[in-house]
Amino acid sequence: MQNMIILGIDPGIAIVGYGVIEYSGNKFKVLNYGAITTKAGTKVKDRLKTIYDSLIDIIREFKPDCIAIEELFYNNNAKTIINVAQGRAMPYLAAANCALEIYEYTPLQVKQAVVGYGRAEKKQVQQMTKMLLNLEKIPKPDDTADALAIAICHAHSFRMNDKLI
Amino acid sequence: MQNMIILGIDPGIAIVGYGVIEYSGNKFKVLNYGAITTKAGTKVKDRLKTIYDSLIDIIREFKPDCIAIEELFYNNNAKTIINVAQGRAMPYLAAANCALEIYEYTPLQVKQAVVGYGRAEKKQVQQMTKMLLNLEKIPKPDDTADALAIAICHAHSFRMNDKLI
Repeated sequence: MQNMIILGIDPGIAIVGYGVIEYSGNKFKVLNYGAITTKAGTKVKDRLKTIYDSLIDIIREFKPDCIAIEELFYNNNAKTIINVAQGRAMPYLAAANCALEIYEYTPLQVKQAVVGYGRAEKKQVQQMTKMLLNLEKIPKPDDTADALAIAICHAHSFRMNDKLI
Repeated sequence: MQNMIILGIDPGIAIVGYGVIEYSGNKFKVLNYGAITTKAGTKVKDRLKTIYDSLIDIIREFKPDCIAIEELFYNNNAKTIINVAQGRAMPYLAAANCALEIYEYTPLQVKQAVVGYGRAEKKQVQQMTKMLLNLEKIPKPDDTADALAIAICHAHSFRMNDKLI
């Protein structure tokens, strides 16, 4: 079975969670995870540049085969949605510039793939993520744990698609 | 009086209007204008890359001193706002990567600066833009005319700020 390196991303402008996992023979290996943070009050252009440059660094170091990202849904805070959407453009541009595919998953798909239950609580997703990845603790901040869960979701979805073929 | 080259941008994902003007001694000279277009149905990452790369090309060719862009307001279409905001991140990243300042103006400020009246109709703004820039016709599409109006707005605002000092 082929191995696959996945960069999972929980997009944003203030905190961008990321997790790089290797999936091989039905097993996961964590290569790296963390959060790119930018300060409120900093200029938007500089925040976006920090995010973009950090993503390119991560891609260059870990050479993922693809990127998995959470779909963005409208929430009631217009200011937030604009900022988050602007931040979310960075992984897309990074993917395009590094010739990587980018796959989108809904929170429902992530929960389904990680816990096996679409209405699972956030805490359950984090616990399963920790277990599947053989981590000692749930990664902090939540954005990082979310990014790892998205990466797992892509691995599982890909495996399922493979089986269908 | 110092001259200043301004790149005005009307951001988006399907159509990004742009206009490059030179402002010197209270006079305008149009250097270039047009629209970057991306096709619906194309992958988001590729649309964003097209926009980003085109902006970098324009900046390299015309060497603007700064970028002026319209502020984004929430409208009722959540899908649109997310797409437009993602597209709007491209001029910001281009500005950061080319060490240019980026200035935001509200539609009210643009109307005020171009027509002298904050509640001016779109058509009036376009007519004044054509006149001030000594163009034969109103540039098409509207996004291009808007981008030129934003550039004029920045020139006028900057002049006013200069006078205050």
